[in-house]
Amino acid sequence: MKYEFMKRTIEVASKGSGFVNPKPLYGAVLVKDNNIIGEGYFDGTKAEVAEIKAIKNSTENTQGASLYLNMEASLGNEDISVILKNGIKNIYFGILDPVLKGKTVNLLREKGIQVETGLLRDECEELNEIYIHYIKNGIPFVFTKWAMTLDGKLATRTGDSKWISNEDSLKFVHKLRQRVAAILVGENTVKLDNPMLNTRLDCPKISNPLRVIISKYGDIPNDSNVLKVDDNTKTLIIASTNIAKERENYFLHKKVNVMKLEEKSGYIDFKDIVKALGKIGIDSLYIEGGGAILGSAFDSGIVNKVYAVVAPKIIGGKGAVTPVGGKGIEKMRDALVLKKVTHEIVGSDVIFKGYLY
Amino acid sequence: MKYEFMKRTIEVASKGSGFVNPKPLYGAVLVKDNNIIGEGYFDGTKAEVAEIKAIKNSTENTQGASLYLNMEASLGNEDISVILKNGIKNIYFGILDPVLKGKTVNLLREKGIQVETGLLRDECEELNEIYIHYIKNGIPFVFTKWAMTLDGKLATRTGDSKWISNEDSLKFVHKLRQRVAAILVGENTVKLDNPMLNTRLDCPKISNPLRVIISKYGDIPNDSNVLKVDDNTKTLIIASTNIAKERENYFLHKKVNVMKLEEKSGYIDFKDIVKALGKIGIDSLYIEGGGAILGSAFDSGIVNKVYAVVAPKIIGGKGAVTPVGGKGIEKMRDALVLKKVTHEIVGSDVIFKGYLY
Repeated sequence: MKYEFMKRTIEVASKGSGFVNPKPLYGAVLVKDNNIIGEGYFDGTKAEVAEIKAIKNSTENTQGASLYLNMEASLGNEDISVILKNGIKNIYFGILDPVLKGKTVNLLREKGIQVETGLLRDECEELNEIYIHYIKNGIPFVFTKWAMTLDGKLATRTGDSKWISNEDSLKFVHKLRQRVAAILVGENTVKLDNPMLNTRLDCPKISNPLRVIISKYGDIPNDSNVLKVDDNTKTLIIASTNIAKERENYFLHKKVNVMKLEEKSGYIDFKDIVKALGKIGIDSLYIEGGGAILGSAFDSGIVNKVYAVVAPKIIGGKGAVTPVGGKGIEKMRDALVLKKVTHEIVGSDVIFKGYLY
Repeated sequence: MKYEFMKRTIEVASKGSGFVNPKPLYGAVLVKDNNIIGEGYFDGTKAEVAEIKAIKNSTENTQGASLYLNMEASLGNEDISVILKNGIKNIYFGILDPVLKGKTVNLLREKGIQVETGLLRDECEELNEIYIHYIKNGIPFVFTKWAMTLDGKLATRTGDSKWISNEDSLKFVHKLRQRVAAILVGENTVKLDNPMLNTRLDCPKISNPLRVIISKYGDIPNDSNVLKVDDNTKTLIIASTNIAKERENYFLHKKVNVMKLEEKSGYIDFKDIVKALGKIGIDSLYIEGGGAILGSAFDSGIVNKVYAVVAPKIIGGKGAVTPVGGKGIEKMRDALVLKKVTHEIVGSDVIFKGYLY
């Protein structure tokens, strides 16, 4: 039963997805006599912590109840006294917080509460993989995503990519966008597809992720969708320090931000990009393509997690673009082999998920 | 129970796979009181038909038993009298034979046997898809197969492809080779990989499929593995009518056959290839690559069934070759969409299977 309750805790915590960055996701489930009597999660606002919400939402007397939390949280004296006053006897944590490192656990034990840690550790780590990575490295956790045909292409030879994957796979992919602080594409994708890069899910409360466009000299059409910004949908252009002043001013005038980075042998280095994004609080980055951008991302070794949709369609074409361009490797033995691979079958499409580290 | 017995019949018939081409696979299961009491299958030799084998192999008295057959077979008077003499009351057929078209069914009914047809029709059609296609069209049923990385590549930019898929996927793929009358690759694959193109399964009885190499002017190394032939492992080179006489003679001297076809705007047309192969009794062809050959095969519309292994590895490289080259299509709405798609998860690889028609 313990694992069931922690699984539910992870589900509850996920409700905060997209609202909390760069903070972690917290969920709390209160259990008495093997029944869930209260739930709470962190929604990014400065309201009560998840565990206090779970207690306040409780449908029954909480005396002797157990509390499940996906990750150790920083608790003040006031929070702890609420927990004690409500008769909570046991607390189960999925994982420790990489900053607190057990500080809260010790505090609770000192007050006589029984604490157990390490329940569904892997799942709890995945849930907060963005936060854990960002805290440790100061650069965003980088997801990549592409949808390709069964013959390995992102688009036909003429650049048409609408649509490769089925509708349900598209939905799955848009849901991923919701999790991250920023979405990145190259200027070719802007020119070819003119994407909105919003999350396109019917959730009015949510802010869209920052749209990041790599465009050395700002060579994208003035009427591109990504240049239409509002309070909930912002854009940052990563440009070369050599971008023309007038072009930069044009973007700034349109309320599009510009981040200028030094070129290195003609390119802007992805390592510099993630460092710069980390510094402005971007904890997670979702690179959507195209092939050239994904190629440099893999070449520079900054990718943490891969999502790839494979759709059983054949389009052919020797010159059609594949998901990962760039330099690439020479020998199969040097291939990047994804770890912890899972497959999700969505109709006739398959979504591969895996890690690189 | 009827469906269970027909499923078993299909399994039994499959034992003949690789031995019967260009004839169909036949399996027979004899059932009494809901127990299987006899089984038989066609192994390509001129021995008894499957149903007579099942009766002869029977472990019990066959009076009142039912017979399951995956496909209508041509039965002589002698066969029918054995069936009658052994007291078989019911016969279930999966599908009718496209040549006999119910002739045997009518014959059996005239003799007072109860016949039912259409049991597990789809499965029985798939089992004999090679035979049915060949009888109807006179050209081989064409399978294609490739193993690609999750970033859509057949090999690294330097042409290294050992190995993309895992060992179990490789085994699966070799098992497919066993089914077909011929395996085809282009001369680039011969030069790059120097494949054996045998079935590599430990089955001494079986003949390897005919190895077919497309090589316009015979431009493959003299020490290529495919040029080593013996009684069980033969090779046919598909060349242009413009191949140099000395080169042709070299192959013939090595006991490698040469089939010469007219070039059409510099290429040998795949439609001409399958017609010519059909005429020499090749009922099934397995195209293994590379990208250029698969590209022309899809461009010419001769592919019937696709197997594609997708392995969660990333190799990158703008110039690395993708599974299907050729001309390709312009618009996604014209994509070849696989039908009846199934997925087999083999470790972290996924094998896609689907049809084109």
